[in-house]
Amino acid sequence: MNDERWLLPTGIEEVLPARAAELERLRRCLLDLFRSWGYELVIPPFIDYLESLLTGTGRDLDLQTFKLTDQLSGRLLGVRADMTPQVARIDAHHLRREIPTRLCYLGTILHTRTDGFAGTRSPLQIGAEIYGHDGPESDVEVLRLLVRTLETAGIESPYLDLGHVGVYRGLIQQAGLSRADELRLFDALQRKASAEIDAIITETGVAGPVGTMLLSLVELNGEDALSRASTMLRAADPQVLGALDRLQRVADELRRWLPDLPVHFDLAELRGYTYKTGVVFAAFAPGWGLEIARGGRYDDIGRVFGRARPAVGFSSDLKGLIALSAQAAAAEVAPAAVMAPWDADPELQPIVERLRAEGRQVLYELPDQRGVPSDYNCCERLAKIDGVWQLVPDVAA
Amino acid sequence: MNDERWLLPTGIEEVLPARAAELERLRRCLLDLFRSWGYELVIPPFIDYLESLLTGTGRDLDLQTFKLTDQLSGRLLGVRADMTPQVARIDAHHLRREIPTRLCYLGTILHTRTDGFAGTRSPLQIGAEIYGHDGPESDVEVLRLLVRTLETAGIESPYLDLGHVGVYRGLIQQAGLSRADELRLFDALQRKASAEIDAIITETGVAGPVGTMLLSLVELNGEDALSRASTMLRAADPQVLGALDRLQRVADELRRWLPDLPVHFDLAELRGYTYKTGVVFAAFAPGWGLEIARGGRYDDIGRVFGRARPAVGFSSDLKGLIALSAQAAAAEVAPAAVMAPWDADPELQPIVERLRAEGRQVLYELPDQRGVPSDYNCCERLAKIDGVWQLVPDVAA
Repeated sequence: MNDERWLLPTGIEEVLPARAAELERLRRCLLDLFRSWGYELVIPPFIDYLESLLTGTGRDLDLQTFKLTDQLSGRLLGVRADMTPQVARIDAHHLRREIPTRLCYLGTILHTRTDGFAGTRSPLQIGAEIYGHDGPESDVEVLRLLVRTLETAGIESPYLDLGHVGVYRGLIQQAGLSRADELRLFDALQRKASAEIDAIITETGVAGPVGTMLLSLVELNGEDALSRASTMLRAADPQVLGALDRLQRVADELRRWLPDLPVHFDLAELRGYTYKTGVVFAAFAPGWGLEIARGGRYDDIGRVFGRARPAVGFSSDLKGLIALSAQAAAAEVAPAAVMAPWDADPELQPIVERLRAEGRQVLYELPDQRGVPSDYNCCERLAKIDGVWQLVPDVAA
Repeated sequence: MNDERWLLPTGIEEVLPARAAELERLRRCLLDLFRSWGYELVIPPFIDYLESLLTGTGRDLDLQTFKLTDQLSGRLLGVRADMTPQVARIDAHHLRREIPTRLCYLGTILHTRTDGFAGTRSPLQIGAEIYGHDGPESDVEVLRLLVRTLETAGIESPYLDLGHVGVYRGLIQQAGLSRADELRLFDALQRKASAEIDAIITETGVAGPVGTMLLSLVELNGEDALSRASTMLRAADPQVLGALDRLQRVADELRRWLPDLPVHFDLAELRGYTYKTGVVFAAFAPGWGLEIARGGRYDDIGRVFGRARPAVGFSSDLKGLIALSAQAAAAEVAPAAVMAPWDADPELQPIVERLRAEGRQVLYELPDQRGVPSDYNCCERLAKIDGVWQLVPDVAA
């Protein structure tokens, strides 16, 4: 075993200096961005009672959550696989504000299985959420911030996929399907398996128009999906028509702010269906098949923590964004460092401090250290010449 | 259970906006400090194969480590309870440099039991290490960086406790004690239980002078402990005398750089005895009984990962530092924010962007939002006056 002690578990990464510096740079840019938009940083805990983590989130998250036994309480703990339920608790239980509250977060989450666009089990999840506002404007603000986040990360020409869980949920209700059939159909729909959907509809005896409408969801995607839906789903219940109307309003508002952003609709795309309540969306980058960010509306998520409020947000994986980033590809070269002799001379110390405060790296030379200055990325040296400390070029050890 | 969904496990914290902003500010200051000293950031993974995490670290860390089963490999994983073994792996297996390598890290670790100076189970561990140099200068550089770290965190007048595991280890060897007796004695020594130590020495039949020297360790603490040790331990083996000499050299060198720093010696203080190999130290703040940072030398820690190198480093808990920080007590008031109307006017957007780029927070007003501007920390508003967008004072909704 000793020979393999350096092995990492599948989907678990360590980040080495060059990439870590890039990650730290982007981390700061994004948190500054969020702050400038009025989003306040919160830091939820890494582990939590399992029931707090899985509140209303459904079976997928349960399967993705590592479980631990708490030796102090004997209760079951989970490692967070998503920070949204924790942020909802902060809004509902700790902040308890009446006004809309903008929150953001950044931290490692763990998944039991590889997932997501970087094939990782430990994404560095970053996200932003608005609590306490239920209009299309908060949907749009979150979408705008998502787009700006991708731009800041150097993702060029992203596009959006937009849906609304109320369309499918309304049709299910109209069809009078059981919960079990609803989930079977949901599963088939996610795979856009038309024949299977057709079979389920026939088998469950769903009447003609509703069955046709359910089947049509498979085709209702693309830039013109909303206009086609207004025809194909015209016989649907008010809940469905309300969802389509909301989607249209969000799309119209978004176009006013970001007229050049490509937006696709997909009425069969239902990410986080079990806890989402309104618009759902995902962002994609050209030439990359998997979503790079996702989000939507999940009103009332804080109910179990004592307070139901409207909520909408998005999240992404910072490590995944860095991997796709055009900027990161052109990695920044660190500015050259300065070597200082190991000398406690009180005249030298303030000079070293000043250089460091200016953003320069100053490395003290350790006695008998190996290598030449360039091994340390140093091209200058502090030397005492005629009794005065000064920076001199250093091309040899 | 529903009524208590908001409860957090013992020793597990969530960080709300004001404190999170302060934590983020200090985090950046410290990582910038480390960088300016030439320490490169690395990000070890949050979970790892258990045997990698516990390499050569002893039973204490084992008990403090949460265990998980990896569904993908069937192997046992651990949540990191200390990042040093992971950083050692990065140095030994991935970087493989011949020259001294300065690395730093920052991230959450988890402990099964509350511990440390903030009574937490999830410290935000921050630390710095030098690999590849075995002289007293690297001990001193790490100590200087530790002191600067505490200053940066606003900890006033810290003092150091300095020891060397070679003193006790050498005496044990000289006494010819079994491993079991060594650990019994170690345990008694940590509690400075003189009578118990006396009993163990008598019972194990350790000869006169060595027994007396072992017993004297309990008293060998204070500012003058080294000079007293040179008398009381003068009959000790060369390994002990070598350790005392090294400690003296470190203290002398440290005094040259930081003449005003209070340094106590404690030859019975053996933090991390099972894997430390040289100097050991801890930092304290006045009026606070528990250590606020610790460290020492642990040469050859990377051997199991393929490469033994000298290593010395320190670590602390950022959340604990913030809690003790005099600066944090005088919490910064966030600069007032600006409210912008929900208006996609292309003339407004660049103005909002400019303000945000200048570091101002600009919040778009959401239709029907509650509250007055001061609820949002806003005292200015963007308004179109005579066809021009401008900042105007905003004292009412």
